[in-house]
Amino acid sequence: MKYFDYAATCPIDDTSLEVYSQAAKNYFGNSSSLHDQGTQANSLVEHCRKTLADQSGVQKKGIYFTSGGTESNHIGLSVLAKAGEGKHIITSQAEHSSVHNALEKLEKEGYEITRIPFTEEGTIDLGALEAAIRKDTVLVSIQTMNGEIGTLQPVEAIYSICQKWGALFHSDCVQAFGKVDFRAYTKYMDSFSISSHKIYGPKGVGALYLSPSISISPDLYNGSHEKGVRAGTVNVPGIAAFTTAAQENISQMKDHQKHMVALKSTFEQAMLPVQHKLHFIGRTADDAPIIGLTLAGTEGQWAMLEANRKGYAISTGSACTIHDHAPAKTLLAMGYPEETARTFIRISFGKHTTAADVQGLADCLIAMMTVSNPTVRAEV
Amino acid sequence: MKYFDYAATCPIDDTSLEVYSQAAKNYFGNSSSLHDQGTQANSLVEHCRKTLADQSGVQKKGIYFTSGGTESNHIGLSVLAKAGEGKHIITSQAEHSSVHNALEKLEKEGYEITRIPFTEEGTIDLGALEAAIRKDTVLVSIQTMNGEIGTLQPVEAIYSICQKWGALFHSDCVQAFGKVDFRAYTKYMDSFSISSHKIYGPKGVGALYLSPSISISPDLYNGSHEKGVRAGTVNVPGIAAFTTAAQENISQMKDHQKHMVALKSTFEQAMLPVQHKLHFIGRTADDAPIIGLTLAGTEGQWAMLEANRKGYAISTGSACTIHDHAPAKTLLAMGYPEETARTFIRISFGKHTTAADVQGLADCLIAMMTVSNPTVRAEV
Repeated sequence: MKYFDYAATCPIDDTSLEVYSQAAKNYFGNSSSLHDQGTQANSLVEHCRKTLADQSGVQKKGIYFTSGGTESNHIGLSVLAKAGEGKHIITSQAEHSSVHNALEKLEKEGYEITRIPFTEEGTIDLGALEAAIRKDTVLVSIQTMNGEIGTLQPVEAIYSICQKWGALFHSDCVQAFGKVDFRAYTKYMDSFSISSHKIYGPKGVGALYLSPSISISPDLYNGSHEKGVRAGTVNVPGIAAFTTAAQENISQMKDHQKHMVALKSTFEQAMLPVQHKLHFIGRTADDAPIIGLTLAGTEGQWAMLEANRKGYAISTGSACTIHDHAPAKTLLAMGYPEETARTFIRISFGKHTTAADVQGLADCLIAMMTVSNPTVRAEV
Repeated sequence: MKYFDYAATCPIDDTSLEVYSQAAKNYFGNSSSLHDQGTQANSLVEHCRKTLADQSGVQKKGIYFTSGGTESNHIGLSVLAKAGEGKHIITSQAEHSSVHNALEKLEKEGYEITRIPFTEEGTIDLGALEAAIRKDTVLVSIQTMNGEIGTLQPVEAIYSICQKWGALFHSDCVQAFGKVDFRAYTKYMDSFSISSHKIYGPKGVGALYLSPSISISPDLYNGSHEKGVRAGTVNVPGIAAFTTAAQENISQMKDHQKHMVALKSTFEQAMLPVQHKLHFIGRTADDAPIIGLTLAGTEGQWAMLEANRKGYAISTGSACTIHDHAPAKTLLAMGYPEETARTFIRISFGKHTTAADVQGLADCLIAMMTVSNPTVRAEV
């Protein structure tokens, strides 16, 4: 099976897994315990917190460990909504489901949510953001790298608009972390979320950054771990393995980016025979690890299942919403009709992807698009 | 360092860690993805769900995987509070901090919480429960095994009172799971929480059981994973390793219980020279893995630190509240004055504890109690 779904999750690095095992054996104490087993585990967590903060270009005391990106988004959005003044929140129409779900909860609590569309380039419509933002806008939440098409948002411009109006800015950076020069982005954020399993670390671990200047409402106090921000026994081995994966992959990022440029070029070249039937979605960077495209006349769901039968794992969008069978929301945010959005597939590359795998996938897709396809909808 | 804090957390079993590694390598897919890597990961999760359900004597479809006991308690209590009629909730004064925190949130949402005391035996006061329960009591939440003194609650009697009044019963079973014949307890529960790291599995994984007859409010819908009950990419390797640890330790439970009886007897015998200065708290079973005791004239906090200096890791109560420096809440629930509660220490045994370790700990405590102790408070 050739894997092209790194945006959904990555295999764990051997070094990360080895650190997990060592920490599970040698730092098994509860990091809140005051005896040596506890304080040793706690020291390891604090070392990891410092390392991740340095990798992210933020202060150590702003980093909180969580069970993953979803929990980080939920906590971060709750904290920010209650930290400022006003009951208006702005987000995009194409955020990860965890952001949409967290904001729907705040909506039920009385917040007003404005969901702005994407331009045809696949990024936030800055004009729409400026038109929507108000004096009572407490929070703007925009994902840095889109998880369906790999586009990067104009984070500096978004932050500047937020600053002008006194709104806090949270960014879901789960897809961006380890793929871009992260410190160049985080200086424009009040809060962000990252996840371990998207950068070759273990599942079930992530982190939330909250600028130390933000006040945390006592309503959100959540026990003694992680300074009351996140409850539950701290997953020390998971945190150590996450930090190892972050260090290793961020240090190799330039090489990974070059690899992505080459793979993307290979794919585009290989798909030339059917280029008239393809549409690449959004203006993505050459090194973006995610390609989103529509296949004229072919349902994305069918293409995904057919590719799977031929030994290629691709996706029709975020794994976190796939059972909804809803069309890719990024395309809807960009104004594509639902029928077109249903022909969408996502291909995402990782460091283990080879040019030969990409050629094989392209051959598979071309064969699929040039034979009769019983599931094509006449109207598409 | 000799470890006597298994109630706070356990070292991971080698077999559990090996399963973690194998699953992380071979079942790395996102269990929501529809390609083979995803469906294989999902099959493993469903196999684990069935296994844990069988171990617990409940239906598979009632088991939801979470990031641990704390999250299980939070979700379970929210679901149950909204599943029935009425806005009154009963709990004990000596629950785990995650239960207290979850109920404080419900209190802010308008629920009325009655917190009932313990008897001098260290269990729930059934008379107080009967006096407190009302027609509008929607939920009763009582921990099965107390985490500070190891007492077991009369779960059948509690459930029978709940049934009579139409209240749902949730139990935090984090300390009980793997230590008692669990199926004999779960048949009296509508919902319960369990955690992996308390039974020699990895940290960051747990499960919640919700009786399939309970309706889940759409307000609590939380994304596509775990049927909308718990959001976030599923921690497949953690779940596989948790299930392995549960299987292994439950299958060895009778032997572990015999081992606990022997260790407890060793400890009590060894402490005879200072028995007039000791008070064992609560009527615990002979095989309870937790001993709670007060040391006349010695601060628990000092005893813990002194024991640590001598190479013994003991505790002054739950690691999840230890930084509060609050006295053990179980003792307060039993009516002990705060000064006495401050002389409390908790010793908890595990399968790796040896009789020689216990003798060593007893010698250490005796030496501590028979030399002049500069931190003794005159009034104690």
